[in-house]
Amino acid sequence: MKRSMVIAASLLLGTSVLAEGDGIVRDGEYRYLEAQLGDQWAAQDKDIDAKLAEIRGTNGGKPPNIVYVLIDDVSFGILGNRAMNYVTGINTPNINDFADEGMSLMRMYTEPSCTPTRTAMLTGRHPVRAGQEEVKVALVGEGLAAEEVTIAEILKEVGYNTAHVGKWHQGDIEQSFPHNQGFDWAAFPVHQQVQLSLMTQDAMKANNMIGFDPSGETNPFAIDQRFRPYGLVTGLEAEAGQQAREVHMEAGEVWTQAKYHEMNVRYQAQAIEQINSLAAKDEPFFMQYWPLYPLNFVYDQEQQKSRNGGYMAEKMELLDEWLGEFFTAIDNTDKADNTIVVLMSDNGIFNYYSPNSGMMELIYRGGKTQHLEGGVRTDAFVRWPGVIPAGSAAGDIVHVSDLFTTFARVAGGMDYIPRDRVIDGVDQTALLIEGEGNSRRDYVYVYEGPLLRSIVKQDIKMHMPAPGLPGAAAPVFNLLRDPREMNPIIGIALWAGASFQDMTKRHTNMIAKYPHLPIGKGVPYGGIENLRPESIETREVFDSWH
Amino acid sequence: MKRSMVIAASLLLGTSVLAEGDGIVRDGEYRYLEAQLGDQWAAQDKDIDAKLAEIRGTNGGKPPNIVYVLIDDVSFGILGNRAMNYVTGINTPNINDFADEGMSLMRMYTEPSCTPTRTAMLTGRHPVRAGQEEVKVALVGEGLAAEEVTIAEILKEVGYNTAHVGKWHQGDIEQSFPHNQGFDWAAFPVHQQVQLSLMTQDAMKANNMIGFDPSGETNPFAIDQRFRPYGLVTGLEAEAGQQAREVHMEAGEVWTQAKYHEMNVRYQAQAIEQINSLAAKDEPFFMQYWPLYPLNFVYDQEQQKSRNGGYMAEKMELLDEWLGEFFTAIDNTDKADNTIVVLMSDNGIFNYYSPNSGMMELIYRGGKTQHLEGGVRTDAFVRWPGVIPAGSAAGDIVHVSDLFTTFARVAGGMDYIPRDRVIDGVDQTALLIEGEGNSRRDYVYVYEGPLLRSIVKQDIKMHMPAPGLPGAAAPVFNLLRDPREMNPIIGIALWAGASFQDMTKRHTNMIAKYPHLPIGKGVPYGGIENLRPESIETREVFDSWH
Repeated sequence: MKRSMVIAASLLLGTSVLAEGDGIVRDGEYRYLEAQLGDQWAAQDKDIDAKLAEIRGTNGGKPPNIVYVLIDDVSFGILGNRAMNYVTGINTPNINDFADEGMSLMRMYTEPSCTPTRTAMLTGRHPVRAGQEEVKVALVGEGLAAEEVTIAEILKEVGYNTAHVGKWHQGDIEQSFPHNQGFDWAAFPVHQQVQLSLMTQDAMKANNMIGFDPSGETNPFAIDQRFRPYGLVTGLEAEAGQQAREVHMEAGEVWTQAKYHEMNVRYQAQAIEQINSLAAKDEPFFMQYWPLYPLNFVYDQEQQKSRNGGYMAEKMELLDEWLGEFFTAIDNTDKADNTIVVLMSDNGIFNYYSPNSGMMELIYRGGKTQHLEGGVRTDAFVRWPGVIPAGSAAGDIVHVSDLFTTFARVAGGMDYIPRDRVIDGVDQTALLIEGEGNSRRDYVYVYEGPLLRSIVKQDIKMHMPAPGLPGAAAPVFNLLRDPREMNPIIGIALWAGASFQDMTKRHTNMIAKYPHLPIGKGVPYGGIENLRPESIETREVFDSWH
Repeated sequence: MKRSMVIAASLLLGTSVLAEGDGIVRDGEYRYLEAQLGDQWAAQDKDIDAKLAEIRGTNGGKPPNIVYVLIDDVSFGILGNRAMNYVTGINTPNINDFADEGMSLMRMYTEPSCTPTRTAMLTGRHPVRAGQEEVKVALVGEGLAAEEVTIAEILKEVGYNTAHVGKWHQGDIEQSFPHNQGFDWAAFPVHQQVQLSLMTQDAMKANNMIGFDPSGETNPFAIDQRFRPYGLVTGLEAEAGQQAREVHMEAGEVWTQAKYHEMNVRYQAQAIEQINSLAAKDEPFFMQYWPLYPLNFVYDQEQQKSRNGGYMAEKMELLDEWLGEFFTAIDNTDKADNTIVVLMSDNGIFNYYSPNSGMMELIYRGGKTQHLEGGVRTDAFVRWPGVIPAGSAAGDIVHVSDLFTTFARVAGGMDYIPRDRVIDGVDQTALLIEGEGNSRRDYVYVYEGPLLRSIVKQDIKMHMPAPGLPGAAAPVFNLLRDPREMNPIIGIALWAGASFQDMTKRHTNMIAKYPHLPIGKGVPYGGIENLRPESIETREVFDSWH
């Protein structure tokens, strides 16, 4: 939805927007906490408002700029930690240095896959509420709905310039594209790395993809010529309100690993260009840099960078170099002191490709697509000069959707958060400003696609019982004593089952009251002014059954 | 063996004692490296000798004091790392601070159990070479042989005062006791924590021990009244050349968890007393503090310290406090600047008691008693003010036996290393002084008791094939890409099998040439002047079958 959203009646309220009655529709579990701690939070919010006003005062009345770096498929422990760098043989010195400059969020939860995590951050909602359950690979004719309100749209309302560079992965329809979801400018691929690095002849040769490229094949039993995705649109660039253009791809050209690398190089250059361009303007800015690397499925011929040597490990070290350059670019602007930079990963490792990719299970079990901690726990670091002490850390539970609400609060945009739907994102400004122990959540609901698979509360986690099985069959784990979720403690924590059942009800009752909204639907590749003939053909075949 | 050892002909050699021809009998794999790098090492040794002389020069001609803190059963990652503290809910702020003051050894290998690791450090030899294969629980009538030459004996030869406080676990015979193995003074229990915290009524009540305490039992089928260990000697104190005395235990008294705690408190106090007393003397000193905690099998009633709450986790936090006090005591002497302090753990967690103990598998799979990385990889930190830069780290492979040779080198005692047996410990002085990348080993042979179970070389590890199976059946792992040793890469690393077979031969050929020495044998509890009647009775029953 563009800037024309209806502002709820809560606009009439004062600045202490988090107190009960601010009109934001919260999940039941948050209300349960609020009933216990609401007065305390309201008092703390007054201090925080004063502090935010003071920060603006020292920055010419301007709210902080926000830069959000989202890395793909890297589990907790791989980034920002020298000892773990030694364990993996993947060095991340620049990210480690960055981590030391701010707060390490030791318990950041994401959704278990790329599309859902990104939707959660953009909308402040569990993606299931927006119908954004699945990772999108080829043509789908759907994506992030115009009716969803993104953090970029909110920040536009309060005067921010906005830009997006890199992976987007929110659908292939016009309304889902970043320049139609609040970003003034964007450079992004429509699809993701499965298309860009894995669905190639190079990946077949590297034995990481079977049967994709049919060249040389003589198979009389293969009737469908479009079972293999074909003619997909690659990288787009666009300004808000305009048509998008596919770039660096000619009609008839075959996508290769070399072109994937060039795309990565281009996004890195564009990220730095955008920082410089945004910082040179008078308005505050919000910028997303969502790199495609380290996801990669082909070895390079060039000199190996890491001890690990896996094809993703190599790109992780390259990305670390690039991020060092990106942070330097931020530091070289005159806006660095009033810029919040958040760096994190979107979900756990793509473990189907371990160990050749070099990315592996470490502390937590599981990876991408899974509700296990290895799927939904990632490294996350926040740098906010002058506000967050260097070298700090927080063990509090945070969910990626909290960034939506927190960024809105910090920017003065709480009034633009929609009041007609559930917002899962919790305002964590208190945590950033007051430090560890000030989170406003001690719970997370963990979905795999449309299914609620786990509930985390404090240090305890329940895996939901299989459909039809009684609650007593659900395994319960103590994550401190059993981080790998191997030894259920149901026998010695039987009280927890009942409390988790209550949590389930508090969640599902709110869904009944505020049903999920539908995913956006439309013609794939709408609003692209230079579609290649092969993309048009692919869309026609796709449309035949819709 | 006491100070009367025969000095080998190599005494006639110069100071560059590590070059080929220093007379020390090395394992085949070391020689294989030496054939490649010996000239380089010899040149480096000249620089190191100069540096050691310079260090002595700035310390009144005295070699460095050495303090060796060995913690029990804590796997790699639990100590010294803030992020991992958050994962486990076990905070170790004092150990973390200590780690920051020196070098973190990121790849320290131990033996997989207490007795073997301690023998390896004391003798510089894989414990199997000294017959010290097994952990000793109750009466065994055996232990570290007088013929073994300990690091304490070597340091005595070059004028050090020596003391040992805490766990010892090298046997129950007189020759094996620390005051007969090079220590001027020692306070130590004859047995270990299984006796001291687990073989108690308290541990039965806590459901961590079955059937040990027969009180109230009426079982006509239980004939043997000494199947349950009984009347075991507890804590001893002794001076070199004198009889030992059992302390704080009266005839007929029943050992309890409370007494175990008192013993821990006492050793902590004695460790600080010893530091102060040793530092007040003119001679250089070598002190071992080997705490019994965190091994513990009973919850305390007092206020919980950790978020984790497990009964070992609680004691880990208590020990961290105590070590903070111990380090402060060192710093408050006037010898801190010339004192090397090494802190490490002896092997992985005692995982049979996870998750109630609060100690769990983390990054590496497995624990105590196992050849898996989780059994033999531990945290290790070396502080050497003015020599090792604060905050440094080394990814080099080090084995606990290397401390023997390195301490001997640093103290100027290389000439007292015996020349009639294989010494596995590699001199790692270059690593300490020149930093990362200067280890003189890239291999480890991993034993479980008498069995060679794995060979590690660089980042590759082979699990030995089961007896009778061909070498091609041995799984090979890349530890960087697969730290949990789950996915054998034999198909893509077939070359490694042959190289590992060569390594096996280089090791077994040296065993054939220098056969293992026998374990020390004797009367249990010899040389204790105040044996309780129940201990005498127990020894008599034990002797009946010997």
